Formats: sequence, C-alpha cells, structure tokens
Amino acid sequence: MFETVEIGQHMSKAEFESVRPQLQVALLAAQRSLRDSQVPVIIIISGVEGAGKGHVVSRLHEWLDVRNLETVTFWDESDEERERPRYWRFWRTLPARGTIGMLFGSWYTKPIIDRVNRDISSSEFDRELHRIAEFERLLSNDGALIIKLWFHIAKEVQQERLKEDKKKRPGGTSSYLKMFAKLYDRFRTVSERAIRLTDQGESPWHIIEATDDRYRDITTGITVLNAMQEKLDALRAPTPPSEGTAIETTYPGEPDPLTVLDRVDLTQKLEDTEYRKELERAQNRVFRAGWNMRNARRNCVLVFEGWDAAGKGGAIRRVTQALDARLYRTIPIAAPTDEERAHHYLWRFWRHIPRAGRMTLYDRSWYGRVLVERVENFARLDEWQRAYKEINDFEEQLTEHGIVLLKFWLHIDQAEQERRFRERETIAYKQHKITADDWRNRSRWRDYEIAVNEMVARTSTNFAPWTLVPANDKKFARVKILTTVADALEQALD
Amino acid sequence: MFETVEIGQHMSKAEFESVRPQLQVALLAAQRSLRDSQVPVIIIISGVEGAGKGHVVSRLHEWLDVRNLETVTFWDESDEERERPRYWRFWRTLPARGTIGMLFGSWYTKPIIDRVNRDISSSEFDRELHRIAEFERLLSNDGALIIKLWFHIAKEVQQERLKEDKKKRPGGTSSYLKMFAKLYDRFRTVSERAIRLTDQGESPWHIIEATDDRYRDITTGITVLNAMQEKLDALRAPTPPSEGTAIETTYPGEPDPLTVLDRVDLTQKLEDTEYRKELERAQNRVFRAGWNMRNARRNCVLVFEGWDAAGKGGAIRRVTQALDARLYRTIPIAAPTDEERAHHYLWRFWRHIPRAGRMTLYDRSWYGRVLVERVENFARLDEWQRAYKEINDFEEQLTEHGIVLLKFWLHIDQAEQERRFRERETIAYKQHKITADDWRNRSRWRDYEIAVNEMVARTSTNFAPWTLVPANDKKFARVKILTTVADALEQALD
Repeated sequence: MFETVEIGQHMSKAEFESVRPQLQVALLAAQRSLRDSQVPVIIIISGVEGAGKGHVVSRLHEWLDVRNLETVTFWDESDEERERPRYWRFWRTLPARGTIGMLFGSWYTKPIIDRVNRDISSSEFDRELHRIAEFERLLSNDGALIIKLWFHIAKEVQQERLKEDKKKRPGGTSSYLKMFAKLYDRFRTVSERAIRLTDQGESPWHIIEATDDRYRDITTGITVLNAMQEKLDALRAPTPPSEGTAIETTYPGEPDPLTVLDRVDLTQKLEDTEYRKELERAQNRVFRAGWNMRNARRNCVLVFEGWDAAGKGGAIRRVTQALDARLYRTIPIAAPTDEERAHHYLWRFWRHIPRAGRMTLYDRSWYGRVLVERVENFARLDEWQRAYKEINDFEEQLTEHGIVLLKFWLHIDQAEQERRFRERETIAYKQHKITADDWRNRSRWRDYEIAVNEMVARTSTNFAPWTLVPANDKKFARVKILTTVADALEQALD
Repeated sequence: MFETVEIGQHMSKAEFESVRPQLQVALLAAQRSLRDSQVPVIIIISGVEGAGKGHVVSRLHEWLDVRNLETVTFWDESDEERERPRYWRFWRTLPARGTIGMLFGSWYTKPIIDRVNRDISSSEFDRELHRIAEFERLLSNDGALIIKLWFHIAKEVQQERLKEDKKKRPGGTSSYLKMFAKLYDRFRTVSERAIRLTDQGESPWHIIEATDDRYRDITTGITVLNAMQEKLDALRAPTPPSEGTAIETTYPGEPDPLTVLDRVDLTQKLEDTEYRKELERAQNRVFRAGWNMRNARRNCVLVFEGWDAAGKGGAIRRVTQALDARLYRTIPIAAPTDEERAHHYLWRFWRHIPRAGRMTLYDRSWYGRVLVERVENFARLDEWQRAYKEINDFEEQLTEHGIVLLKFWLHIDQAEQERRFRERETIAYKQHKITADDWRNRSRWRDYEIAVNEMVARTSTNFAPWTLVPANDKKFARVKILTTVADALEQALD
C-alpha cells in the first residue's frame, strides 16, 4: 500500500505560501467549532523513522491554536506505567472534550516494534491490533474524532536522512537509528498489516508521502482539516435514531421472570459467637494475603456494588481493617469532577488502578453505567448497551496484567432495605446516609432488579465473575466477602 | 514532651459507647459544614510504630462520611516521583477544597527516618523541618485546615506489640520492625525535635497516648472535631482586614520612576541573513544540548512571560523545533479546570514538572499570580504579596533537585504592541490571537509595568534569575532565547 505514496510529490515555496494562509484560517475555524461542540480530537502522528514527524508536530503547533492543544509523547515507560495494564498510560493522557491531543508515538508503537523485533508472534500482534481497533471504536463512540496520520518515505530517502541526523545528534542513540535503517523492509511489512487491520470507518488511516517537507506539511494540514470538517458536518446532521434496541425483559400480563437474584439464599446468617470467630480467622488470612500480595508485587481490585443500605461501607471496612493502611486505597464513587466528565466514563476508574503490590477498593464503580445511569436514563440506550462490552474489555485488560479482580454484589430484599432505611432515620449518626433519593430509588426496585440481572449475566466472565453476596445478615455477608478475598489472593499467590 | 502522654490513660467499653454516637454525629456535621465552606482538610496520621495508626485510619473511615474522604499513603517512591523534586508527590495528592485528605505517612516521614539513620546531618534535618513549616503555612494561607496527630506509646508497649505483629505477618519485613524497636530512643529524640520545630499556630501538633485503643480512638475523634469546629468558628468570625499593605510604587505628582524594563535596549535587532545563520547555529546547539540533557537524565523548565503580542508563541516554537518531540511538552496556561481551581494556585504547575531527561515549556506560568491576578484584582493583596515568597520557595525546590530553570520576560514597547495588534486584526489567520481584552489590558500598561518590575526585583534569585529579552525585533529575541537556553544547558551538563 505504501507504493501509492512513493511518487515523489513535491511543492514549491510559492505554491506553499499561496495555500498556507487560507488553510490556517480554515484550521483555526474548525478547531474553534470542535471546541464549542466539546469534541475531543486525537491526532496520531506515526510512520517511518526519518519522515520528519517532529517537524509536522511543530508545524501543527504553528497552525493551530496551542491554548487548546496538548502534545503527548509515549516513550520510556515509567514504573508507575509498567506496574499497570498497558493502556493505563494512554488513558491518563487522553484529551478532554473540546481539546486536541496530538499523540507522538501511540498505542501502535509498541506492538509494531515488538513485532519487528519478533518479540511477539503474528497472532499476538493481530490480537493487539484488534484491541487497538476496539479501543478506538470506544473513543469514537464517545464522540472523539480520531485522525491517524502515517508518514512515509522510501528506503533510500530514509537512509540518507538518518545519516544526516546522526551527524548532528550526540552519541548514544545511533544504534537505534541503525536498527531502523536495517529493519526498513520488515518495518514496512509489519506497518502495512497494522494499518490494514485498524483502518476502520471510525478511525481511518491517512498515509502521507513525506519526501518533500512542504508537500508533507500542506497535505497534513488539508487532511486534518477535512477530517475536522467531516466531523462537524456529521454533528450538524440530524441525529440518526439511537442504535440498538432495548432488550425486552418483561411481557405485559406475564408474571415477572425470575432473575439471578432470586436464587440468592437470603436466609443465610451467622450467630454472634460464630461471627466473631470466623471474622477474626478471615481477617487474619486477608492480613497475610495482603502482605504476600505486596511482596509478590501483585495488584488487586475489589468492586463493591449492591442495593442502597446493603452494607457496602461496613463490609469494605472489615476488609481494610485487615490490611496495612499503606497497602490499599478506597475510592468512593460520587459525582464526577469536571475533568472526569470531560472524558470517557471509564477514565475516572482507570485513574485509580493500583500500582504493583497495592489494592484499590471501589465503593461503587464503572457498573454505575449499566445500573443507575441506565435506570435513571442518565445514559442513552446505545451508551449503556455497549458498556457491557467496554467493561468486559476493560476487566480483561486488568486480569491479563495479573490484577486480582473481584466483584461483589451485596444483595438484600425489599423488606430488609426498608428496615434499614427506618433505622437510619432514627439513629442520629446514620442520618447522613439516607436521603429522599434513596426512598425514590426504592420505588424502582424492579427496574434495578432487571438491570442487575442483565449486568450479572453479561459481565460474569471467566476472568472476572461476580460474587453475589446474601447480605440480609450483615455478619454473614462480611465473612463471605473476606473469605472470598482471602481465597482469591491465596490462589493467585500460590 | 512525650512523658506527658505516658500516663496509661484508658477507657472502658461502656464509656466508649456512651461517647461514640454523639461524637460521630458532631463529626459528620462538622465535616458537612467544612465541605459547604469548601475548606480542604489535611489530617496527618503519624507517630511511633506499633501505636495502631492503621486502626485509627480505619476508625475515622467509620466515623466520617467516606464519600468525601481520601486516604493517601506515602511509601515507596515511584520513579516518576524520584525524578522530580520531593514535594511533587505531596502536591499531586493534596485534597481538593471541600474534601478531607487523610495522610498516612507524610512530608515528615522521610526526614525523620533519614535523621534516625543518620543519613542527613542535624542542620539538614532542621532545614527540612523549616521547609515543612513553610509548606504548611502556604497550605493554611490558602484556607486549608491541617490537623496533625502524633500517636505515642512507651517503649515496653511497642516491643510487645511488634512481637505480636511479627507473629501474624508473613516474612520479609521483620527487619524493618526490629529496626524500629532498636531505634526507639533515637526515634523519640528525633521526633521530639520535628514536632517542636513544626508546632506552629497554623498547624499545631496533637500528641495522643495510644496505649489503650478505645482511649486513643475517642481522643482522636475529639481532637479532630475540636480542630474542625475551631476552623468553622474562624470562618464565621468577621474577616480581619487583609494582611500586608500595598507597596507604594508611585507618588502623586512625581514622574513615573524608572523600572527595570526601561533599561532594556529595545533597539537591538538582527538582519535577515545574520538571523538565519545565528538561528541555525543556536538551534543546532539546543538540539545537541537536548539530547545531552536526555542522556544525563536532567530535567529542564522554561518559563515564558511577556507583553501580549511580544512573540512568546513564535519564540517557543523556535526552541521546540530544535528538540526531538519526545523530549519536551509545551503547557499553555489558560483558564484553570475545576480540579485546578479546587487547589492552591501552584498545584496546576506542579502537575506538569517534567521527569528526568525531559523539558517543560510553560507558555505563561505561575507568575500570573503577581501579574494579571494582581493587576486585575483576581487575587487579594495578601495573596499576591505572599506569592513572591511561595514562588521563590517553589523554584528553589526545582533547582535544588537539579532542574535547569530559565525564565524569560519578552519585552516590547507600547508602539510595537499597537503595530502588532493592528497586524493581527488584518491578517485572517492571526485574528484568533486578538480580542477586546487585549486592547483593554493595553490601557493598564503602566500597572503591568509596575507589577513586572516588582516581579523581576523580587523573584530574580541567584538560583533562578530572570532573562529580560528585548523583543521589538522578533528575530533578535528568538536567537537571544535560544542561545540562553543552549548556554544554560551546556553549562549544567558540563
């Protein structure tokens, strides 16, 4: 595919100067409109070594309004990045809505280099490319404009440029440059495959001949401009009917179908003496497992979901009591900050993924998307429906990295909830835990039940199954959770 | 000082239960009021090993509303932290306004441990304590409530507890515990000094006897509650007149005094041929210096300030053109996000301090505090006046860490500014750079001049002097900046 851009395009200075001013005006106008429309723009700068990618970055800085533009480079990983799933470093630098993120190096870099060096097999490579395609689809579904630019030069041109570059640059890196020259053909084959497998409607590739600087820069400008204008046109077009249709869960006249929650045995309980014994035993196991996790540099994520008043807070504290305070963080999920709102909904959870040897406990989580946001219509139908897959992909990345991931649904019945609400109203130090919203949510019990059922069905994967915890008896629930945590950690660290 | 809390205080279960409910109600109410008042609360949990600090953290989680509370632990440094000035890790985790940050381990930990191990001299130790006091004063001036808790147990109690703890905890860390037991006396002496030198009005220490769990927890709760209520009382009291008085810079009837800007020779210029030659020479030097910086793992911060239309953007691009795009980040300073607004004004700049081997270019900077915020009354008199010291302390930390820090003021005169404004209005692709605000700011030229003069006078330190750049001729300014950067990097890397 690269042959098509090895035709020696070039542009005179006069031609360049005749196009540049109006191109810049148009780019600025498009950038402003995209900012006003709160579209996050991702420009990926990639291609052959020696194609002048740095110059392109510099040129776009000149042409665009830099107050609204951030350039991110992915080079050496820090240990904070290495100790987390690979996409953490990309998530942490994604541009906010209304801004442009120029990515110099990207999610493509490592898979391509690894494949060129034969560090990964061709099927592992394809798998990475598939992950990239999914990731870009997720961003694009969230409203992002992704402009992928690949700068190409022929082999002879590269050889010459690298020689030139080596002369100017101080020692230490010439081997890196040599490698590129030597591996040109292999790099070309691998890149072609990468481009082909990720060239999708949501995020097409643009291959630009980079032999002549002026031609390269003007073509880049025009390509970026066209992509921006296309996006703006699409925004102006009448919204197509929301994708996907609601899954029918009940039928008029029929009795409510059983859900997975109905099979939870809520009569299970622990007596006081037994509870104290079991709690201490389980906490001691978690205490030891926590230190072993630390020493083995493994990380762990616990997710707590459940009905209002199901006892999430108390259960979380029984876990953290058993852990050295330096080993864990509890993240209560409340209203998002505006930086969080300006990103994909998973961004705020990626933020808190623990480093090696640490644990994060999420008090409510990304499942809000398919629970409260679904039931209360905070998310559109297509948004919460595709969230199942997005969440599964996310959790797969966590577990692939070796994170021990456990998800708890604390289940109580309506009668027990009412009893606890009343108790909260009468006990002074519990009153902050009960609001009118809680009573209102109760009236939508059945809707939530359907949502929970579907959530458990669709996101109980073999790598991250749900644990449904009977929680009518708090003592039983706490011990159940502690032993589940201990079991999982002991097994993972064995 | 610790003798006073070695008196064996303890509390029965009945006593505990009689106090706990109303204490919790009061704590929750105080927390809510502080949230409504947008006060950031910092609770520092420190003290002797074995005093049950982890249990205290857990207890406060139980008593407070966790949706509004984050616990941060400072333990192993990551390389991202090691490669930056030491306070970077504290800045990145400071609580936002209206939230509580519980710090388990803090800025006290390392100096104390280092001094116990004799890794630092007593004067270095005192210096660190002085820095801590300044840091806490800065936070407190910004409205933060700092509650510092020190948990103490006698030597015999510690020995017993550590033995107990060792039994439960899996291998690998017993040497750490032994160290604490062995070094108890030395730790005690060092801690006493730390507490004494940092026990100031803005952030007093509270020493709590931790021999009996119930006594420790209730005393903690009451101490936190009292501190919160005191803060709320202070907020309710009528505001005292703003501290400090404006520095008289002009006298009625007298001619405007000369400022440092008047001594800048604006006639300096470069002809085209000379410019092209000099530019290339300087960029080549910066190119090499950039790679040397990278190889030497040094970091570099460039600050660009100057009159509107002085040519900051163009000058910055001439620097970045000379650098590999992976080596630098440009941070344009626009309106803060709400996460930024919810912190001390320096927080958003700390965020972007580069890692080892990288450079950050700030397009406008923390100096906004003493320029636009001063002139436009966005900051109160006492706020911008104390900013000089805060900024000097900040920059001292950067340079002490080995960061090469350069600050440029691009100076033009009023006539040149007017010429450029007019040009911007007529050239289409420059129109986004000129707004009504720019014309308005122009009318306050003299106020800005006074502010710039004072800024240069007060923040030209020996570790971070200002470079005043004559910028009526853009070409001269660009070459001047590039050679200054090259000189500084070459000297630092020599």
